[in-house]
Amino acid sequence: MAGRNFLFVPGPTNVPDRVLRAMVVPQEDHRSPKFPELALACIQGLKRIFKTETGTPILFPSSGTGCWEAALTNTLNPGDTVLASTFGQFSFLWADMCRRLGFDTQVLDLEWGEGAVPERYHAALEADREHRIKAVLVCQNETATGVSSDVAAIRRVLDSLGHPALLFVDAVSALASIDFRMDEWKVDVCVSGSQKGLMLPAGLGVTCVSPKALDAARTAKSPRCYFDYNDMVKNNATGYFPYTPSIPMLYGLREAIAMLEEEGLEQVFHRHAYLAGGVRAAVFEGWKLRLCARDPRWYSDTVSAIMVPEGFDAAKVIARAYSRYNTSLGAGLSKVAGKVFRIGHLGDSNEVMMLAAVAAAEVAMLDCGIPVTPGSGTAAAGSYYRAHSPTREGA
Amino acid sequence: MAGRNFLFVPGPTNVPDRVLRAMVVPQEDHRSPKFPELALACIQGLKRIFKTETGTPILFPSSGTGCWEAALTNTLNPGDTVLASTFGQFSFLWADMCRRLGFDTQVLDLEWGEGAVPERYHAALEADREHRIKAVLVCQNETATGVSSDVAAIRRVLDSLGHPALLFVDAVSALASIDFRMDEWKVDVCVSGSQKGLMLPAGLGVTCVSPKALDAARTAKSPRCYFDYNDMVKNNATGYFPYTPSIPMLYGLREAIAMLEEEGLEQVFHRHAYLAGGVRAAVFEGWKLRLCARDPRWYSDTVSAIMVPEGFDAAKVIARAYSRYNTSLGAGLSKVAGKVFRIGHLGDSNEVMMLAAVAAAEVAMLDCGIPVTPGSGTAAAGSYYRAHSPTREGA
Amino acid sequence: MAGRNFLFVPGPTNVPDRVLRAMVVPQEDHRSPKFPELALACIQGLKRIFKTETGTPILFPSSGTGCWEAALTNTLNPGDTVLASTFGQFSFLWADMCRRLGFDTQVLDLEWGEGAVPERYHAALEADREHRIKAVLVCQNETATGVSSDVAAIRRVLDSLGHPALLFVDAVSALASIDFRMDEWKVDVCVSGSQKGLMLPAGLGVTCVSPKALDAARTAKSPRCYFDYNDMVKNNATGYFPYTPSIPMLYGLREAIAMLEEEGLEQVFHRHAYLAGGVRAAVFEGWKLRLCARDPRWYSDTVSAIMVPEGFDAAKVIARAYSRYNTSLGAGLSKVAGKVFRIGHLGDSNEVMMLAAVAAAEVAMLDCGIPVTPGSGTAAAGSYYRAHSPTREGA
Amino acid sequence: MAGRNFLFVPGPTNVPDRVLRAMVVPQEDHRSPKFPELALACIQGLKRIFKTETGTPILFPSSGTGCWEAALTNTLNPGDTVLASTFGQFSFLWADMCRRLGFDTQVLDLEWGEGAVPERYHAALEADREHRIKAVLVCQNETATGVSSDVAAIRRVLDSLGHPALLFVDAVSALASIDFRMDEWKVDVCVSGSQKGLMLPAGLGVTCVSPKALDAARTAKSPRCYFDYNDMVKNNATGYFPYTPSIPMLYGLREAIAMLEEEGLEQVFHRHAYLAGGVRAAVFEGWKLRLCARDPRWYSDTVSAIMVPEGFDAAKVIARAYSRYNTSLGAGLSKVAGKVFRIGHLGDSNEVMMLAAVAAAEVAMLDCGIPVTPGSGTAAAGSYYRAHSPTREGA
Repeated sequence: MAGRNFLFVPGPTNVPDRVLRAMVVPQEDHRSPKFPELALACIQGLKRIFKTETGTPILFPSSGTGCWEAALTNTLNPGDTVLASTFGQFSFLWADMCRRLGFDTQVLDLEWGEGAVPERYHAALEADREHRIKAVLVCQNETATGVSSDVAAIRRVLDSLGHPALLFVDAVSALASIDFRMDEWKVDVCVSGSQKGLMLPAGLGVTCVSPKALDAARTAKSPRCYFDYNDMVKNNATGYFPYTPSIPMLYGLREAIAMLEEEGLEQVFHRHAYLAGGVRAAVFEGWKLRLCARDPRWYSDTVSAIMVPEGFDAAKVIARAYSRYNTSLGAGLSKVAGKVFRIGHLGDSNEVMMLAAVAAAEVAMLDCGIPVTPGSGTAAAGSYYRAHSPTREGA
Repeated sequence: MAGRNFLFVPGPTNVPDRVLRAMVVPQEDHRSPKFPELALACIQGLKRIFKTETGTPILFPSSGTGCWEAALTNTLNPGDTVLASTFGQFSFLWADMCRRLGFDTQVLDLEWGEGAVPERYHAALEADREHRIKAVLVCQNETATGVSSDVAAIRRVLDSLGHPALLFVDAVSALASIDFRMDEWKVDVCVSGSQKGLMLPAGLGVTCVSPKALDAARTAKSPRCYFDYNDMVKNNATGYFPYTPSIPMLYGLREAIAMLEEEGLEQVFHRHAYLAGGVRAAVFEGWKLRLCARDPRWYSDTVSAIMVPEGFDAAKVIARAYSRYNTSLGAGLSKVAGKVFRIGHLGDSNEVMMLAAVAAAEVAMLDCGIPVTPGSGTAAAGSYYRAHSPTREGA
Repeated sequence: MAGRNFLFVPGPTNVPDRVLRAMVVPQEDHRSPKFPELALACIQGLKRIFKTETGTPILFPSSGTGCWEAALTNTLNPGDTVLASTFGQFSFLWADMCRRLGFDTQVLDLEWGEGAVPERYHAALEADREHRIKAVLVCQNETATGVSSDVAAIRRVLDSLGHPALLFVDAVSALASIDFRMDEWKVDVCVSGSQKGLMLPAGLGVTCVSPKALDAARTAKSPRCYFDYNDMVKNNATGYFPYTPSIPMLYGLREAIAMLEEEGLEQVFHRHAYLAGGVRAAVFEGWKLRLCARDPRWYSDTVSAIMVPEGFDAAKVIARAYSRYNTSLGAGLSKVAGKVFRIGHLGDSNEVMMLAAVAAAEVAMLDCGIPVTPGSGTAAAGSYYRAHSPTREGA
Repeated sequence: MAGRNFLFVPGPTNVPDRVLRAMVVPQEDHRSPKFPELALACIQGLKRIFKTETGTPILFPSSGTGCWEAALTNTLNPGDTVLASTFGQFSFLWADMCRRLGFDTQVLDLEWGEGAVPERYHAALEADREHRIKAVLVCQNETATGVSSDVAAIRRVLDSLGHPALLFVDAVSALASIDFRMDEWKVDVCVSGSQKGLMLPAGLGVTCVSPKALDAARTAKSPRCYFDYNDMVKNNATGYFPYTPSIPMLYGLREAIAMLEEEGLEQVFHRHAYLAGGVRAAVFEGWKLRLCARDPRWYSDTVSAIMVPEGFDAAKVIARAYSRYNTSLGAGLSKVAGKVFRIGHLGDSNEVMMLAAVAAAEVAMLDCGIPVTPGSGTAAAGSYYRAHSPTREGA
């Protein structure tokens, strides 16, 4: 097909040319005296991205899924109890992993379209008088439903109850796009990946571990080797890795961090909110449709899951957008398959990319018989962008 | 600025990733026994692009401007008379070059917005009883005004009068986008460049020369050396060049030709007409604006020069699109500066790119106070694309 | 430093320009209808590389270390007994992983410089009358010492004893460089990685699993999730992955497989033996030094670990080669640290690269006071190449 | 063929990965407000490379040949007299161009292997009492024979005679490799190209013009348009070009200049002398052969033309190096065809690349029956590098 594919799945996201270029490197000796300069630049930079001074970023050659597993096996003993909530495919999969790895998994089964309801966490943790729950899992941004949760609120629940459980956060589709604060929220393990807000191809599991979690890792008895924090921390201390890292991914990561910091992290968050605002304007004011996210408090600034009207199949919209308009929209997964299509608005994006996404989704919907008003989406999104500042106030 | 720049200037056009990739090559010896395979693939492929069996494609390390000069100095003697028409910045510059190089230059001064009017050529050539006019220049696609001319009609004029002048065609923004037929139209020199329909960076002058023009080149007395056809033809015969060629550009050209042929040249032309149709629908039906091209017979399928309403400055629209929306529109040049902005729809383009161009131009116009109806452009363009086939009938 | 770094570590190896180019791709939707074409091309191609019809290649976003772990946790139950041999850093680490993951690990502790002695395996397996040993581990090519082992011989040991244990082979630095035959040798899990003979950056764990191992995976009780074969096999069946794969690595892998098959696998093996022969000629005939590998039967065709004379520090040679001559030699690891430097001759290599390695090592050794005869290494290697055919006989 | 091609032709030279990377860019609007930043960075940087404050660098989309022509047509009137010397293929071609363009061309016909003998220039200029010679041409580095000339000496000749002729220097294979001083030597036009010391692909003619030459350009009557200095200077003043420039080449040039300046120009010159020294040691001390350059005063630090013994065909050595050893050596051109092969040691080179060149040439010569001592070349070159400092004294 002619022209560029428009990629609006919420990951892998569009890799900026600058990052792509940084990755076109010859291979090099990962044990050379020069190598630590690169490795340490990545690790130090990630500390700023995670907003942590006490936490330890760790990079696994893996997907984010691997970091989910690492969080569990490094800090817990076999049979330990964890508390998770499920309200979308990815929060479900993480909870399911807990079960598969043999942990006693308490699940708060929430509606898809809601987020991590603090009250439900409060009830479960309050009931846990004996502190059998060793870890509390929160998905900051549920990519499947376009729902963001309030991690700070969960931290407040733990604090208010004096509950000592570790706090694990899945920030895969939040980090470097939506504000995340490792230290302020006292997160013990934050799990993320390279292919979202970090604007890289998939392949690097990016995680950050608190001193408390590292302490747990020293004694935890769950079997693990590849994902062992201790090996990583020991090798990383001098700027090396326990096994061969991907040279291009490290160069790419260093460049991506530089881009984020040149723009400024707070401005990056503002941009994501601003771009998301235009997409939501198209959905609500233009197309008169609904999001999967049920309430503005849950609206995600990185991905919007848009519900097609009853009687229509969202999968057909996605197929049409792809085959006729060279545009990749995100599919509805599991419970919302066929009900939603998703527009990812995270990573390296701008207004015209969003207008293109809206315009493409619109013609695809029309082709599928969905009665939206032609031009209404771009009109609403365009008006939103014209009325709002692309930069932070005062900036 | 975040996200991808949207490039809608009518050259350089967007280089497809596949071509970009083909150009990431180590340098190599341009005198090696293996080199001719690459060079000859380019030259043979260009014959098919020019639709010629008798013509000889020549590649100069130059811009298209260099090929303008080569056409003149290789075939004409000092002081020879040429006939040109001017109806835009590029047709003007070519005629101006004739004057600067000392040729006796007869100019048909046409309105900007019209093309090469065959009747005017007829009158001038009919008056030239003594056949003092040695070359007739036609700009097939005037990039500055978005005007296409009928080259075949000019050939018919020459034939009907039995006039022996050479026919030179500027197909810089036409080749590989709008139908061009070297042999059928008996064109003597076709001038083009790499950075338009050939989807490459600038840097290669791409020209094609008829046997009649090569004959002229054997005896023409205009001084030239760098652009000498004879040197090129002699060296190219065995697959080499008289001076060091750009290795990446040759690999890129070979790949671009492969892409054009995989899609099919006729389908490439269809696609350009189809994409242009959507842009024109946005202009006329959506925005209720006018093109610089005055009549449908002149509408260009590779670039649209859109007139802003009286009292507005098109340069401000372009500046706004660039600075706020990361979108590059083409400027109005010379006589139409401030009056038009241009959307290039040539090269590696598709529907959503056009919708993005329209959406970006629309918000930029609105920001400049131009009273177009929000969403009207994408509505009209989208409807056009939905109603028309992206592929040729029967295909 | 000016000029190109010469990379002779035995991994990551030099990525050919063609593969590097294939990896310069935009990201794409890994759930698109087009995606399986790419994924299945990789998987089908790997079957030919592994020489298997019944085996199932699996790609993990991981290093080869991850595939070591996957082999163990997918097929064994907690506490199961495995038999391993250690004769270098990597065979040691794999055995150590068995212990760390809680398996009862019988280790054949061999000399560094020897390989997997079949007689030692025979003795251990013969003694295992009750067939408590569930898996037998063999390192086909010990990268740390430059030692190759005879996997077929270990298979014969198992067969002769009628022992039902699974056979696991580490072919990380052997696959696509030294002959490996999954089906013929009845290997149950072969473990490899992207950054050696497959000529890619690190980041893909490349493994192949026999039907017998997949059967074991259906019931094995060792906890695992990320590295679960069943998830992979189920998703791969339709050309998808259970989590986001690296798009560039898949394109790179497809291209690397194409290159290997265009050259021909048997010719690839021949080339490795031929290039290794030149390096060994430099070591023995030129420099009058010794390899770590104690006997020709153990000589590796992918890496040579060269012993410096008593009283010299190999680490200084490596440091000098790097800092003064922009050349990366492989370090001696663990027991052989300071005693050897390594020249990797696997992957995308040719004669002049080997001559450069030899020349660089020679000046670095001379700078460190090691009394080799100037020019003797390149003289011997050059003579070897001149006297031997770069292609297979009859080819 | 497996492995990397070793490229030792004296242009195009090896493009450093860093420059190659800088060229992987999307196209952009060459009339944007941001564009001049790039263009002016290149132009300003080149002033430092040319060592000029008063000169004006000009970039033509062309090869260096185009800049030869531009020097002549911009500053001379038809029929003007020029003085040139020929002592190799490139100095010959430039003089030949003068004739072809209709200038009265006085040629000092020197031996191939010598350079621009100042005494011969003195005699010719002294005889020109009427100052009919308007321009004096000197080839600073004759790429075909590996001969460097003393430009300062020619300037002294002109000064001593008070001769007002313009001084034109071909520094194609000298600039950014061998010291060149535009202002100090009062050069009027320096001609160079992108594909040599500037470490880029071919395609950019890089020239620098003195105020005196620009004055001449204002009134010179030779017809020219594409190569007109005035158009360029006028457009460049604001950071634009009269016709579409190659975006990738400009980004590449900016990066190449940055690399040269990070290393330091004087250190770049030192490195070239140092690397050349090793190659010459191989030729003289190792192989006992001769250079085409007849005297040390003519030895070029960018390319060595090595004479094969009587009775042998250098073309066969080159063919063998290419077909068997994947190594590109430079051919003998014209008068020295078959008599010499050339090793380019300019641009992005280092010691081990030179050792590789020497090793490859040696096995190729041996294969052709030339009786050099195996290993003698690398022994001599290696000893040279070991005995000399890669950095300037005091550095």
